[in-house]
Amino acid sequence: MSESTIDLTGLTIAVLGGTGPQGRGLARRFAQAGLNVVLGSRTTEKGEAAAKELSEAIGKSVAGADNAGASEQGDIVLVVVPWDGHGELLKSLAPQLAGKIVVDCVNPLGFDKQGAYALHVEEGSATQQAFGLLPESRVVGAFHNVSAVLLEDPEVTSIETDVLVLGDDREATDTVQALASAIPGVRGVYGGRVRNAHQVEALTANLISANRRYKAHAGIRITDV
Amino acid sequence: MSESTIDLTGLTIAVLGGTGPQGRGLARRFAQAGLNVVLGSRTTEKGEAAAKELSEAIGKSVAGADNAGASEQGDIVLVVVPWDGHGELLKSLAPQLAGKIVVDCVNPLGFDKQGAYALHVEEGSATQQAFGLLPESRVVGAFHNVSAVLLEDPEVTSIETDVLVLGDDREATDTVQALASAIPGVRGVYGGRVRNAHQVEALTANLISANRRYKAHAGIRITDV
Repeated sequence: MSESTIDLTGLTIAVLGGTGPQGRGLARRFAQAGLNVVLGSRTTEKGEAAAKELSEAIGKSVAGADNAGASEQGDIVLVVVPWDGHGELLKSLAPQLAGKIVVDCVNPLGFDKQGAYALHVEEGSATQQAFGLLPESRVVGAFHNVSAVLLEDPEVTSIETDVLVLGDDREATDTVQALASAIPGVRGVYGGRVRNAHQVEALTANLISANRRYKAHAGIRITDV
Repeated sequence: MSESTIDLTGLTIAVLGGTGPQGRGLARRFAQAGLNVVLGSRTTEKGEAAAKELSEAIGKSVAGADNAGASEQGDIVLVVVPWDGHGELLKSLAPQLAGKIVVDCVNPLGFDKQGAYALHVEEGSATQQAFGLLPESRVVGAFHNVSAVLLEDPEVTSIETDVLVLGDDREATDTVQALASAIPGVRGVYGGRVRNAHQVEALTANLISANRRYKAHAGIRITDV
């Protein structure tokens, strides 16, 4: 199986933390690509409210739930929650996430007067933390460097960026590459094993630095691939 | 001053570790761009031999010296040595490197059966180590992700990649961006402060993973910049 032959039709994509800009933006793009999407949030009420708002904005039905409900409904579950609380949430959702592809999209970053910087993560990276906490899941890292501003902008029809997909499970990374490539302009590119996730998460700090310097919404492309 | 108005004419670029593939490749491209280049190596003899070989290969005069001599001659000094011994070398060259722009290009990587991975660096990154050891120099990080194979290939006339340039000294990063942009196809892009160098160095492990998967010489482009 390779990425190009993977059929995502009928799959449900759950987005935990789907009420933040990055989660909302990804949910928007997946729904527009014709996938079933469920937005998860801390409470059912918040998840449903965000889903209703997104559904109305894009004219496509998006479901809402709490994070546990969204985890149960999703075939592929994206984790787009704040770094603070990331480990605790995943630990609590381990039963619902068992057997599923879990895509960690979290960038552990700090901010000060000099801009963004990578936080020290005991396990090495958010993806490695998820990998350790969810031994029954198929953990992949992806969607770290995609601008939330572009994802949420209805006038942006194509997003010129590659998504580096990290994981030790080839079928899972192939599937997530296909999911990334479902967004017009985006290409899912294999970026290495889970142990090499840290630098891709942290690279977001460099893109934020470039954004400030160039007044841009920087993304990355991998050349010669 | 901005990158585009910087005139590199007449400057001498020293390449420490200029006998390895990455150093040789960068020296080749800078010489071809019309810059004065001096290759540094552990001994004068080795530096001169490598310079002679490169001069003959490209039909342009390149000088050779030991690393201390090259450091003295260079206006901009690139550090392209193995990670093992990096700190010791820089410490010993601190007097020669005082007042100069020192461009650290080193990627602290390990390799095993599963491929490349980022090594833990006490100071955070090679660039941060250089920054700490060379308080009298203007330390910049750059050229981490450029394929040595492409740099050394005489049939490759344009290298499609961006070079992320990291540093806290604006004039120095502007100068190094201009230096990167002197290589056809390459663009120097500001990538943040010294504290954000680690992930750019480590990203080379991801590109090596992509190289294996796709049989490529992967590089990066920063989009929307």
